[in-house]
Amino acid sequence: MKFTLIKKSTRNRARLGMIDTPRGRIQTPIFMPVGTVGSVKALTSDDLKHCGAQIILGNTYHLYLRPGCDVMSHMGGLHEFIRWDRPMLTDSGGFQFFSLAKLAKFTEDGVTFQSHIDGSRHFFSPEKSVEIQTILGSDIMMSLDWCMGYPATFDQAQTALEKTTAWAQKGYDFWQAQGAPNNLFGIVQGGMFKDLRTRSAEELMQIDFSGFAIGGLSVGEPTDLMYEMANHTLPLLPENKPRYIMGVGTPENLVELTQMGCDMFDCVMPSRNARNGKLFTSKGDMNIHNARFKFDTRPIDETCSCYTCQNYTRAYLRHLYKSRELLAYRLNTIHNLYYYLDLMAKMREAIQADEFDAFKRQFYENRAQGV
Amino acid sequence: MKFTLIKKSTRNRARLGMIDTPRGRIQTPIFMPVGTVGSVKALTSDDLKHCGAQIILGNTYHLYLRPGCDVMSHMGGLHEFIRWDRPMLTDSGGFQFFSLAKLAKFTEDGVTFQSHIDGSRHFFSPEKSVEIQTILGSDIMMSLDWCMGYPATFDQAQTALEKTTAWAQKGYDFWQAQGAPNNLFGIVQGGMFKDLRTRSAEELMQIDFSGFAIGGLSVGEPTDLMYEMANHTLPLLPENKPRYIMGVGTPENLVELTQMGCDMFDCVMPSRNARNGKLFTSKGDMNIHNARFKFDTRPIDETCSCYTCQNYTRAYLRHLYKSRELLAYRLNTIHNLYYYLDLMAKMREAIQADEFDAFKRQFYENRAQGV
Ligand SMILES: [Zn+2]
Ligand SMILES: [Zn+2]
Repeated sequence: MKFTLIKKSTRNRARLGMIDTPRGRIQTPIFMPVGTVGSVKALTSDDLKHCGAQIILGNTYHLYLRPGCDVMSHMGGLHEFIRWDRPMLTDSGGFQFFSLAKLAKFTEDGVTFQSHIDGSRHFFSPEKSVEIQTILGSDIMMSLDWCMGYPATFDQAQTALEKTTAWAQKGYDFWQAQGAPNNLFGIVQGGMFKDLRTRSAEELMQIDFSGFAIGGLSVGEPTDLMYEMANHTLPLLPENKPRYIMGVGTPENLVELTQMGCDMFDCVMPSRNARNGKLFTSKGDMNIHNARFKFDTRPIDETCSCYTCQNYTRAYLRHLYKSRELLAYRLNTIHNLYYYLDLMAKMREAIQADEFDAFKRQFYENRAQGV
Repeated sequence: MKFTLIKKSTRNRARLGMIDTPRGRIQTPIFMPVGTVGSVKALTSDDLKHCGAQIILGNTYHLYLRPGCDVMSHMGGLHEFIRWDRPMLTDSGGFQFFSLAKLAKFTEDGVTFQSHIDGSRHFFSPEKSVEIQTILGSDIMMSLDWCMGYPATFDQAQTALEKTTAWAQKGYDFWQAQGAPNNLFGIVQGGMFKDLRTRSAEELMQIDFSGFAIGGLSVGEPTDLMYEMANHTLPLLPENKPRYIMGVGTPENLVELTQMGCDMFDCVMPSRNARNGKLFTSKGDMNIHNARFKFDTRPIDETCSCYTCQNYTRAYLRHLYKSRELLAYRLNTIHNLYYYLDLMAKMREAIQADEFDAFKRQFYENRAQGV
């Protein structure tokens, strides 16, 4: 993997770059649709390419439990299994042990937990997480991190950060011993404490990771606090490596964090909201089930070139959604992901032209209009 | 609408034809995917065209209740609303009053019922059914019929047939008074009594319908009895008009009934079964969740050219289905409908070549192989 910094905004920290991998180029800043258990819900790879996806995310915890490493190994890895030939990033499992697994017990060596599917017992170490991600054939692997909720005390945040650093080193050493296949990112923790964020970043930067992520944000804290932490942490990270903020967020979040110098994002919001009838548009968000769309012959967003907007009316999408027709989920998801990926493309153009400030003003002005 | 009989098999009653409508040609025998409430579940029109759909079916009862005639009228009809530019057939509502609506009360004039969605009260007459189907812009409308379950007594079947004939005449007269827009089919009833089927057919043939359907089959009776009734009734119907057996059935049913001279079919089976993981293949049926497909790198059907078979393995489809991923429903439905429509295409070829018997032997032989 090679990260090239193409351009930096003159009046803020937004940056344009590209990540070259054997499976293709990723233009940054980029948003990565989340393909939790082996599909970005309701979409095929062709749909994702139509939406402009350059890289998608897979969840190691989910895929480890089902279909399992035996299947993934037999099928030749996740790309081949799900028929996605562009880059893929996998998380480490850390967030799911914290949020989804049952009876997760964190120790020095790793995490014991029970499957949320069948209650079966499992153990993940930092090494095992890298091993599984290698079997998945991930282009960008993530170090196992120790996650926390919000709020957390200083002591809790400090413990989590210390374990995360220790696990990062272990995962890295294991990865190196395997011949350093593909790429491995470290994850900065430290909760909502700036000094802990600083310490975490400094410790991790001692390790020669391929890139750095900021974890533990968007876990329930106020948006301003999230921005404050991101704004504090991003400049600490090496300029010559990609910076990834995990699990964030709204279109506004993406714009603000891009301005702060973040290169990579992932979030279930566009796809999950789509399945709940919440659609993002250039003029603000809309609830497709709203009665005022009953006779509305317009597309979701008149400025959108997605398959859904090119073919279907709000009235029809409202009808599908209210009737719980399966087609609603696919059409809504296509639109929301297209919107997100198009927003990233527009930000890249703005950075290229060094007009990010003007872009951002216009973005907020448009979004305030209302649908 | 113009029905042209192209060819008749020399050794059985299978026939090849075409129906020309302003929205395009339908080659018969044909299977019509069911788009109950304004979408063939999980599929777009592009998906349906990929599957080879020449005509699809819409349900008047469902569309009348939701989105309602005001929306349908405002949107310019069902084709425009759902973005389907090929022919569409709509049913009359009769079957849903019988099977789905609450507290349906059948009288001389029509049916009063409560919506299965919100309990609201409604009334359908034969005239109103035609009126609504006209608003939908249906290319082929169906007369309101009086449906029954199985078993039914002779008296029950006789009553239903008498009402059906009376309603057929009323619907036809109303349709004529409107200038006979598009096309209207009559529906033969008569339960499992041959003499009643004869009487129903003879009465309906007094009315100059565009085509004739056989209703009240596949309602729980043994398959042999269904075949017996179809085989008795089909030859009674005029040779120069399309013959449609409603709500049937399995691939084997389609082959047998085509041999008996049926031209048109519809059934939710391929799409519903797809959503339940039951897939049809040239070598028999399969349950995609079966453990033996866990590591299976083959497509569902190696002889199938559908999008699903061209791109995905059984192992992946099994994983999607077991994980209840939305993508499973679409991919499975594409395959099953493609299989059904391809089967019809192969039957048309066989009739054209006057090799239907040989085709049928091979069909059964292949289907008996097992997946
Ligand atoms: Zn769109
Ligand atoms: Zn197929």
